[in-house]
Amino acid sequence: MSKYWSETVKGITPYVPGEQPGAKKVIKLNTNENPYPPSEQVLDAMKAAVTGRLKLYPDPECVGLRKAAADYYGLPIENIFAGNGSDEILAFCFKAFFNPGETILFPDITYSFYEVYARLFNISYQKIPLDEQFDIPFEPFFGQNGGILLANPNAPTGKFTSVDSIRQILVHNPDKVVIIDEAYIDFGGESCVPSIPDHPNLLVVHTFSKSRSLAGLRVGLAMGQSELIEGLNRVKNSINSYTLDAVAQVGGEQSLRDIETFELNVRQIIKTREYTVKALKNLQFEVIDSRANFIFVTHPVIPAVELFDALRQQDIIVRYFAKPRIDNYLRISIGTDEEMEALCRALEGILREK
Amino acid sequence: MSKYWSETVKGITPYVPGEQPGAKKVIKLNTNENPYPPSEQVLDAMKAAVTGRLKLYPDPECVGLRKAAADYYGLPIENIFAGNGSDEILAFCFKAFFNPGETILFPDITYSFYEVYARLFNISYQKIPLDEQFDIPFEPFFGQNGGILLANPNAPTGKFTSVDSIRQILVHNPDKVVIIDEAYIDFGGESCVPSIPDHPNLLVVHTFSKSRSLAGLRVGLAMGQSELIEGLNRVKNSINSYTLDAVAQVGGEQSLRDIETFELNVRQIIKTREYTVKALKNLQFEVIDSRANFIFVTHPVIPAVELFDALRQQDIIVRYFAKPRIDNYLRISIGTDEEMEALCRALEGILREK
Repeated sequence: MSKYWSETVKGITPYVPGEQPGAKKVIKLNTNENPYPPSEQVLDAMKAAVTGRLKLYPDPECVGLRKAAADYYGLPIENIFAGNGSDEILAFCFKAFFNPGETILFPDITYSFYEVYARLFNISYQKIPLDEQFDIPFEPFFGQNGGILLANPNAPTGKFTSVDSIRQILVHNPDKVVIIDEAYIDFGGESCVPSIPDHPNLLVVHTFSKSRSLAGLRVGLAMGQSELIEGLNRVKNSINSYTLDAVAQVGGEQSLRDIETFELNVRQIIKTREYTVKALKNLQFEVIDSRANFIFVTHPVIPAVELFDALRQQDIIVRYFAKPRIDNYLRISIGTDEEMEALCRALEGILREK
Repeated sequence: MSKYWSETVKGITPYVPGEQPGAKKVIKLNTNENPYPPSEQVLDAMKAAVTGRLKLYPDPECVGLRKAAADYYGLPIENIFAGNGSDEILAFCFKAFFNPGETILFPDITYSFYEVYARLFNISYQKIPLDEQFDIPFEPFFGQNGGILLANPNAPTGKFTSVDSIRQILVHNPDKVVIIDEAYIDFGGESCVPSIPDHPNLLVVHTFSKSRSLAGLRVGLAMGQSELIEGLNRVKNSINSYTLDAVAQVGGEQSLRDIETFELNVRQIIKTREYTVKALKNLQFEVIDSRANFIFVTHPVIPAVELFDALRQQDIIVRYFAKPRIDNYLRISIGTDEEMEALCRALEGILREK
């Protein structure tokens, strides 16, 4: 604690991302990255953008990237905001749409960054408990509130909430912004993006770090009606006019244009997920129904933290959250078939020794 | 104005960066970019970083880049923070070090983004008037305040404040953070970085967008004692764990390693600046003494806004600020010799026709 820190900074607990092991050779199933690289089309376009032109500022409006997103999602470009990953966009949302003193709502079990944003920006919040099956109960979101934030599929559970249910929340909160964080939507969920024209209070946030294999590039999108996008732009342009560098803008744009590789990788990950779910169920794991590129599992006999440590000793890194209700679960990212087979063999061995 | 915007966002006026004319062929002297491209060493390293590894998150600690900065500046790595350009770093500073209700101080004529940050983060501020020569008066910064923010050299004047003077401000404010924005320091000023070990309240902010020819890449640094750096990290990690993508980290690192190209370009820009100053003085311009890669000029006969418009018609873009005290000045970035010769010829022609 330093006397130079602001009162806010003294009081916050920053988010801790999953470990990045660096050069060490491990099976890395802890941060929900895509096991497949971005396509040559994307990489070639980026390399071609590494030129002397980098002496100039990048396009602050990210027109090329936003135009590609507009084409891909069938929205006007005015409905699209581009940012430095979905985390930054979500932070901007807290500043753009929520007011201190008006309590916002999000589930008790969800992406733990939401609470960090709320504390940083001094937004009061209430956590709505998920039901016993980790499903989102709707009625608690119908009452008075200062805004709503839902991950769909939810993290770290992977559970999907139907668009019909979300539409109900939207119509019950016509004066408040409802943010749907669809970081994992491409792995089998149904997106709320087509609902944007019907709901001026709906903002959908996407990331290129999961389904698009570009975690290293820092690209995310927010989509909503233009007055919401303008609100985000006002915040962005009060912090940093250029959050996306010239190379990242080109990489993001090409990723949206290369639909074939994207769909191929997503299909493969879903296939690998279904195989892994079966294999873990055979090992007596309980597996929460996932529409994400990770699974959330618990074992009836061996505590999750023991499994976490035992896997780690075999250089397999998964994610464990020492938090109420989920401290006996592991979140396991879906890697390649080979990686998931290695995981299953390792777990089988660990269970056998117990 | 939207009912969905937060009260803060309704009240702010975002920063407006200098125009980026896109593909149109112009002489662009409006955003203080470097006229020389980054070196092949920098570009090659970046291209080599465009690989399948982009599927993984980048290093959230930016160790390679910060190590290179530590070597270059002779500081321990714990004294260095890396961010997405100096604008983002300055925004984080407002959240990390300033409290609402404690009035911070900055000059009346300075980088206009400071006021934007203050409004976004609800930090009260007082503008200290520069003297008639656009110099910073020191005594007003000695009183009680919530923190201090100075650009050195100042923008848009280009005027340099001595390190001795800044040290006086530092010793008079031992409990408050004094931020020195050295975006333009490499063009002939003396940096406060060597004063960091003596002053725990000193934070120095640098950008790679000017002297390092990497505006398109979005890299900046903050340097100070480790508790200030930790304060910045707490804010960063409450907004976005990874503000610098993997390619930008490598480009920034190589830029710090390629000292030869950096020094060559900086020397050339200073030489061109001195040539331009002489040429404009021959055209009766008054030129403020600049240690930056831009000059701030006024003409005794023709109003600045007329010159701005006339230059624009000849596809030469400079910067004009319609603000009190400086609305008869133009800020002109230093380009190549050829660009500055074209500027001088154009101005000569415009003055002749009047």
